[in-house]
Amino acid sequence: MKLLIDNVSIVPMTEDNYIIEKGFIVIEGDSIKAVGTGNAPSGDYDQIIDGTNRLALPGFINAHTHAAMTLLRGYADDMPLMEWLEKKIWPLEAKLTADDVYWGTMLAIVEMIKSGTTCFADMYFFMDEVARAVAQTGIRAVLARGMVGIGPENELAFTESRALVKKWNGSNNGRISIILGPHAPYTCPSDYMAKIMALAEELNLGIHIHLAETAGEFADSNNNYGKTPVAQMESLGLFAHPVLAAHCVHLTEQDIEILAKYKVGVAHNPESNMKLASGIAPVPELLKAGIPVALGTDGASSNNNLDMLQELRTCALLHKVNTMDPTVLPAYQALQMATANGAKALGLDRQIGQLEQGKKADIILCKLDQAHMIPRYDLIANLVYSGQAADVDTVIIDGNIIMQDRIIKNFDEEEVLRHSKLVAERLVTPI
Amino acid sequence: MKLLIDNVSIVPMTEDNYIIEKGFIVIEGDSIKAVGTGNAPSGDYDQIIDGTNRLALPGFINAHTHAAMTLLRGYADDMPLMEWLEKKIWPLEAKLTADDVYWGTMLAIVEMIKSGTTCFADMYFFMDEVARAVAQTGIRAVLARGMVGIGPENELAFTESRALVKKWNGSNNGRISIILGPHAPYTCPSDYMAKIMALAEELNLGIHIHLAETAGEFADSNNNYGKTPVAQMESLGLFAHPVLAAHCVHLTEQDIEILAKYKVGVAHNPESNMKLASGIAPVPELLKAGIPVALGTDGASSNNNLDMLQELRTCALLHKVNTMDPTVLPAYQALQMATANGAKALGLDRQIGQLEQGKKADIILCKLDQAHMIPRYDLIANLVYSGQAADVDTVIIDGNIIMQDRIIKNFDEEEVLRHSKLVAERLVTPI
Repeated sequence: MKLLIDNVSIVPMTEDNYIIEKGFIVIEGDSIKAVGTGNAPSGDYDQIIDGTNRLALPGFINAHTHAAMTLLRGYADDMPLMEWLEKKIWPLEAKLTADDVYWGTMLAIVEMIKSGTTCFADMYFFMDEVARAVAQTGIRAVLARGMVGIGPENELAFTESRALVKKWNGSNNGRISIILGPHAPYTCPSDYMAKIMALAEELNLGIHIHLAETAGEFADSNNNYGKTPVAQMESLGLFAHPVLAAHCVHLTEQDIEILAKYKVGVAHNPESNMKLASGIAPVPELLKAGIPVALGTDGASSNNNLDMLQELRTCALLHKVNTMDPTVLPAYQALQMATANGAKALGLDRQIGQLEQGKKADIILCKLDQAHMIPRYDLIANLVYSGQAADVDTVIIDGNIIMQDRIIKNFDEEEVLRHSKLVAERLVTPI
Repeated sequence: MKLLIDNVSIVPMTEDNYIIEKGFIVIEGDSIKAVGTGNAPSGDYDQIIDGTNRLALPGFINAHTHAAMTLLRGYADDMPLMEWLEKKIWPLEAKLTADDVYWGTMLAIVEMIKSGTTCFADMYFFMDEVARAVAQTGIRAVLARGMVGIGPENELAFTESRALVKKWNGSNNGRISIILGPHAPYTCPSDYMAKIMALAEELNLGIHIHLAETAGEFADSNNNYGKTPVAQMESLGLFAHPVLAAHCVHLTEQDIEILAKYKVGVAHNPESNMKLASGIAPVPELLKAGIPVALGTDGASSNNNLDMLQELRTCALLHKVNTMDPTVLPAYQALQMATANGAKALGLDRQIGQLEQGKKADIILCKLDQAHMIPRYDLIANLVYSGQAADVDTVIIDGNIIMQDRIIKNFDEEEVLRHSKLVAERLVTPI
């Protein structure tokens, strides 16, 4: 398949605020063959997409989510954290079957594609079903089976993680990667974490973990270990592995130095942290320290959507007011967090996150001919501060056109909506 | 014209968290004749709208904006406040002609209608052109000519305000109201403010003012008058009039008592306050004091859109994290701010802001059959925490269908986009 996107504005995310006007992108197979401006190279294209009034950019990378939790969207909101978890979220999660997780993930993937996300990092259970949904839909994902040392599934998590790696890691032309998912420092005692690190070493895998999310976790860690969550994880040797750390809200200056020293990828989840009142991560400081801070939506039960454009806009606005400095986190940097930094945090920066020759063709096109995108003084500011999910009209992943004119091409969206509604109805029906 | 919306889910905003399932709304002329559930009354309807998979609610009320500033969208972002104003915003505004303000307002109205706003409170200049755009498009508005005592137009502002009242107040079946617009305490010296209050008294008009927006304004007021901006305005007698006060970010406890005592309407602009790093208004305290806190987007140069769904979502999230309490500002309250409270703050609560018999038919329908709105455990939480502008598919104002299936019916959207692009190009072309 040879594909040309012609006459398009391009934000390749290779250089600060760089925009290519009247540009073209040539795609061959799964990869970008050329990006440029002016006349596109002539050739036998199987398809030509007219990019007039469109902005092309790398697909968004949702660096931390729990896709199947779309099934819990709107089930419990505006509640104190522990009551929310104990009375609502956990009891409903306990009802989820493998099939439910499949449909919840399919629902999430529809939503992600329709809002321009081309890759996501997931941590949940029944991950074989999640991988199946990823394989079928054509999206890219980095999957981790949640591992909890203090629960009944502590051993099962190892068996399943090994099986996942064997079955799925690198499969589907590399669209699926498997890493390990220790849930959090407070659910993974030191000996359990040691076993996880041994497995990571054995199979050469990265690690996805929740870290320093709440003030309670921070206080407990200090009480129990005399160390912050980050320092405690360093002392165990966690950061000798490639780590994707979600949240990192409660950090000391020393913690930031540790994260920078080991080049830990951080997935910032501003909207979930706001909605659950977890706090505001020190993102400007993390970025200043050279840490590749990515963006994630977290699960749909604490957001309540998987909309990365909303997430990056909220991120840009939140840190300005939090630092009382309107120059903090300018538009381009927010966009970088959702694309190039996401790729770095997931260890995929050689493959995705930028539009340039040799990278995988994970590309989205956003419609510009709409009231909220006029005037066109600054396309990047327009996208970041005024864009919305429905502006995304075309999504290409791994060289395949997954959505065009907002119509999903390679699977049945209606079937997913219909079936996931049925699953949700069953979940809340008393037995 | 007799209109029926049938088989629709309704959030009438008359009672906390009240949802009517399989409901109907009967509209006769400009008003709501009936709202109910079950079989709609039979009758000779000129049009029946099928509300299946739609949520009906009162149109959003944007309680503080400068519509024509859409022409400045993306022109200057991520800059320190004074540099932004002095080097970018004011010089460009100085170039604006009456015709430009007309087209900028038309562009804003397209964006507002397409995101579900049915009424807006505006303060700008060339307001005759703004009124003309409002009259033509069918939207509802409360308009104020910005009045600055320390500039060259201090007298002109009075002449124009009087002329506006004469020509437009109550016109177009009451869709247009004119009030007075003293810009801010720091641009309106006491004697100038006295003249404004005399005119308000003479013509029985409300007043729209920027109040306590920045820490600088708060400090200057204390230095110059020994009083906070709110206390200073009270001492002048401003609050004897119906007042719509925009921002109210920097307040003391006494200020909140004053605002509550005089039932001042407050227009909260969370995204503008975040983007310009002005601070976070004490909204939960204001609401607790019984103040009708409404929501506004402010102008598109500091937001950068006019999307009220985004605004109310940001509002709900921001105050949770700011108070570190996830139960603060639940979904319904955020929706109330954007509808019923907006009506109160604008003094229009007998006409709009709720769906019930006798109120004006200002109604929007939002599409529910989309991935990000599934499951349907809680339609209000879905709308507030997951909804987006493009979900709004039908807009009715004053009994007229202004947009259906996202197509604007009663004026030419394409012409507005085309013309406002030309205006923007001229504005940034060096002479």
